[in-house]
Amino acid sequence: MNYQVFWLVMIMKAERLTTFSILGGDKRMLFLARSLCGDGKRVLLGGFDNLKSLGAPVITDVGSAVRYADAVIFPLPCVRADGSLNTVFSDGSVFLTEEEQQAVLRTPVFTSMKERLVRAYPSLKAGMIYDYAAREDFAVRNALPTAEGAIERAMNAYEGTIAGSRSLVVGFGRIGKALTRLLKALGSEVTVAARSEKDLAEIETLGCAVVVTGEISSVKGFDLVFNTVPFLIFDRELLSKTDENTLIIDLASLPGGVDMEAASALGIDAQRALSLPGKCAPKTAAEIIKRTVYATDI
Amino acid sequence: MNYQVFWLVMIMKAERLTTFSILGGDKRMLFLARSLCGDGKRVLLGGFDNLKSLGAPVITDVGSAVRYADAVIFPLPCVRADGSLNTVFSDGSVFLTEEEQQAVLRTPVFTSMKERLVRAYPSLKAGMIYDYAAREDFAVRNALPTAEGAIERAMNAYEGTIAGSRSLVVGFGRIGKALTRLLKALGSEVTVAARSEKDLAEIETLGCAVVVTGEISSVKGFDLVFNTVPFLIFDRELLSKTDENTLIIDLASLPGGVDMEAASALGIDAQRALSLPGKCAPKTAAEIIKRTVYATDI
Amino acid sequence: MNYQVFWLVMIMKAERLTTFSILGGDKRMLFLARSLCGDGKRVLLGGFDNLKSLGAPVITDVGSAVRYADAVIFPLPCVRADGSLNTVFSDGSVFLTEEEQQAVLRTPVFTSMKERLVRAYPSLKAGMIYDYAAREDFAVRNALPTAEGAIERAMNAYEGTIAGSRSLVVGFGRIGKALTRLLKALGSEVTVAARSEKDLAEIETLGCAVVVTGEISSVKGFDLVFNTVPFLIFDRELLSKTDENTLIIDLASLPGGVDMEAASALGIDAQRALSLPGKCAPKTAAEIIKRTVYATDI
Amino acid sequence: MNYQVFWLVMIMKAERLTTFSILGGDKRMLFLARSLCGDGKRVLLGGFDNLKSLGAPVITDVGSAVRYADAVIFPLPCVRADGSLNTVFSDGSVFLTEEEQQAVLRTPVFTSMKERLVRAYPSLKAGMIYDYAAREDFAVRNALPTAEGAIERAMNAYEGTIAGSRSLVVGFGRIGKALTRLLKALGSEVTVAARSEKDLAEIETLGCAVVVTGEISSVKGFDLVFNTVPFLIFDRELLSKTDENTLIIDLASLPGGVDMEAASALGIDAQRALSLPGKCAPKTAAEIIKRTVYATDI
Repeated sequence: MNYQVFWLVMIMKAERLTTFSILGGDKRMLFLARSLCGDGKRVLLGGFDNLKSLGAPVITDVGSAVRYADAVIFPLPCVRADGSLNTVFSDGSVFLTEEEQQAVLRTPVFTSMKERLVRAYPSLKAGMIYDYAAREDFAVRNALPTAEGAIERAMNAYEGTIAGSRSLVVGFGRIGKALTRLLKALGSEVTVAARSEKDLAEIETLGCAVVVTGEISSVKGFDLVFNTVPFLIFDRELLSKTDENTLIIDLASLPGGVDMEAASALGIDAQRALSLPGKCAPKTAAEIIKRTVYATDI
Repeated sequence: MNYQVFWLVMIMKAERLTTFSILGGDKRMLFLARSLCGDGKRVLLGGFDNLKSLGAPVITDVGSAVRYADAVIFPLPCVRADGSLNTVFSDGSVFLTEEEQQAVLRTPVFTSMKERLVRAYPSLKAGMIYDYAAREDFAVRNALPTAEGAIERAMNAYEGTIAGSRSLVVGFGRIGKALTRLLKALGSEVTVAARSEKDLAEIETLGCAVVVTGEISSVKGFDLVFNTVPFLIFDRELLSKTDENTLIIDLASLPGGVDMEAASALGIDAQRALSLPGKCAPKTAAEIIKRTVYATDI
Repeated sequence: MNYQVFWLVMIMKAERLTTFSILGGDKRMLFLARSLCGDGKRVLLGGFDNLKSLGAPVITDVGSAVRYADAVIFPLPCVRADGSLNTVFSDGSVFLTEEEQQAVLRTPVFTSMKERLVRAYPSLKAGMIYDYAAREDFAVRNALPTAEGAIERAMNAYEGTIAGSRSLVVGFGRIGKALTRLLKALGSEVTVAARSEKDLAEIETLGCAVVVTGEISSVKGFDLVFNTVPFLIFDRELLSKTDENTLIIDLASLPGGVDMEAASALGIDAQRALSLPGKCAPKTAAEIIKRTVYATDI
Repeated sequence: MNYQVFWLVMIMKAERLTTFSILGGDKRMLFLARSLCGDGKRVLLGGFDNLKSLGAPVITDVGSAVRYADAVIFPLPCVRADGSLNTVFSDGSVFLTEEEQQAVLRTPVFTSMKERLVRAYPSLKAGMIYDYAAREDFAVRNALPTAEGAIERAMNAYEGTIAGSRSLVVGFGRIGKALTRLLKALGSEVTVAARSEKDLAEIETLGCAVVVTGEISSVKGFDLVFNTVPFLIFDRELLSKTDENTLIIDLASLPGGVDMEAASALGIDAQRALSLPGKCAPKTAAEIIKRTVYATDI
């Protein structure tokens, strides 16, 4: 019974914490810092030595940042391959000292790529580590800035308008769905490639044409192709049966779904577009991190 | 190896069959008959004695219909509670004779409510029975006419326009999703009630407000409420905290999600809206049955 | 200079008046009365003798209504052909007495069909009469409930869904534009008939097919036709070249754009749909009257 | 009567001509050349000396181009300020010789900025000169690539997503309308500034907030501002009452509607975005030129 009471007291949303420390990161972390301050939080930034001042968020050293934190936030990616902090706005390599690791252990830790963090700092394994980037609501929310980023790329690289273009979206997962919606909204004539009868049925109710992913043997008559499937779909074979003036944007995580070399050899404009939320909309990406952190039960 | 050849020959889509017999049903089955004829199929209708002529689809007796069929289609619902055919366009009760059941056993059977059919005619258990209404692609396709039917009901019963109205959609399954999309498209200010973090996140990316289903304690400030959740959500308690001039349309299958008696007592306009595709859009409903039957591997 | 000051004092928006009297009318006027009260106005209703009580709006006799008014509002239509008030919620014929006309003369009068009102009560010619129904912002605002009402009609009469239907909108004025937008939003495949190069160009930018109004010689392949042009476009000749299963909804003011008799003889379902805002969305229609009255400089 | 016959023969759409010569221009003219060839036209390009080969369109000298033409097309802008051809893909200055002007006089001439062309070559005044860029259908069609180009700029410069942003569109002409539609479609919360009661009413029916252009005294709470009005609306005064982190994109033709110097001094990111169709979507821009030329009665 005592335990029950204990848990009733302890489980709460991270939204109620007061002081957040952010250890390294890019522009997104600066937007996150400002947004947290906008909510009345205290924010300490460690690993941003090249910045002078940010207003409300306090720029400090890593040691102070972890010492005074109610929660520690690591960026995307969390740390570098060598375990040093991902300090985009700081020169040199900064590692967490033993003491700093002990301080971090006292507080909830919000990070991306939990595995990598723990590999770099095994002592943290004993702590409360929440992988915000692994949460499904994080992925759902990121689908929209990813899709909008893909549209931006297409607008930039394609010499016509999205309105009136003929586009093919390969894959009907979260990002495929968001992309399909935006392309339709902008007046593109959209075809979607999917696999299940269920998905094909849903795509048709959206007023799009369908094609079965496994049955794509040529890509003719499309101005724009967006691939979201992380398998090699656009191999040399299929690219050789693709119109030359087709723009292909590959959103699939590495190694991607397009044989870039073959595309280049065949004179097809194929582009990789990865980490779009952070690149195209860091402010929105920061909001999504904040929302996800806030919604976490700690 | 022989087996392999055998199966290669035998597995095919029902789309390739030639003669379809339809045993009973309402307007949808007439649209289905015409649509099949439009595809060059031969169609025999059994149990439509009150109709004189339909053009290409042949009206005949049940016996002839089953004898010459490559496939037999039962309507929704497939048969009546007493096992008689669901002959909306025929007086009296017609039952399948032993002989007719034997004829049916030779061909693929496409039906809704397979359980009920087999209970009425146990011999059919040995046959090839495909429940089209139980397929997921059928449900996915029907979400759209269901949502549009709900909009039609709302337009009819609500004294304002959907444009500019404040609406609440309870539930974010197939129908809730389709409804949300149409309401947004028509300019309503939509709030959606859902349960999972993932759904709430997705709803927000659509530009709608969210509320957690389990936390609805009052319904204030909405012109239109659409319930899609098959649990008693709008009980007397909640209805007593609902604005009087709110129109509630309950799409959940019986017993539904609204205490109709309490609503009536409280002067709230609450309406049940069931089987909308068949009622509001029989032609589209027929197309969906055809698509589903065609896509079946037999 | 004195004059200037005078006008600066006197010109104001009708929104600032306190007591509004409404003389007759249908459901719209009841919604208008309630909405005015919701804004803190005092509202007197004359000519609603069959109603007992409405809550805040006061039901009274015509004499009192005009005596205490800051402004008088006449409904649509303003008066009957014989000059009696358009008292839908009152039996018998009520005429404004001399005395009542004198009272009305003291206040701004908001009416539809100014001509007809002045013909019935010539003395009012001396007054401040504002024809709200003749204002362009009134017509613009009404295009939306008109278009939505037309969609409601189509949903009701057509046996398929708007989604996936092929529709033809004849005319690209206010109503044609609003209809096109809603049909597209609901997933119809829309063709618009217009006359000017400019309109045809604009229609194409919306992703719709175009046809030149004067060059329509047959109407084939459409499920739904909406006419908004007040000329006899669908004459016997054209109707004889129209698919039989086409639903035609005629929104053009009388005598309309469709030869109804010929349509009936040819077995084509053609329907007149007039005064849609008042019929399908009286609450929205009332809001629009209020907005228009409020925006009037008096 | 002879005259009547004469005119019946002579008035036709330019679409029926066979050989088009294009004199100078940028990428748009290359897309135009290819598109004309795709329609089976013969195309001669004069003033493209830096290009080797284009496939079907023939690269030649200006003299040959004008000699064999059924029609001559000048680019946007038509000629340079000094009267030399606007030869983006050719070094040096090329002027039309007397002889070439005589050749041009024999054929219809399609140009932008007719005034400037005639000032440079007064003899052409006697010819058949059609200013495609002055036609209303040209302007209507260009509104869409202009709006899409503005969206591209905003996506590029703004650190959040259009979805969920708060945007202000100043002006509700062709471009303002197209922009409003696209912003709404992408999920921005749109406010539109317009002047007439009629426009304000129409904007509200689109589900946008309104503000009266003349009454804008501060710009607070907007992420994105698009100006389409060719007057100095954003002067130092207004900019000083604009949020610092607002992105302003000025689409108004020069001198524009934003005091760029003041914006810069105040730390507001304000950008000029002119000639967007040609810059962001030359292929679409070329199609629009072709459509406009084709639709011309000659």
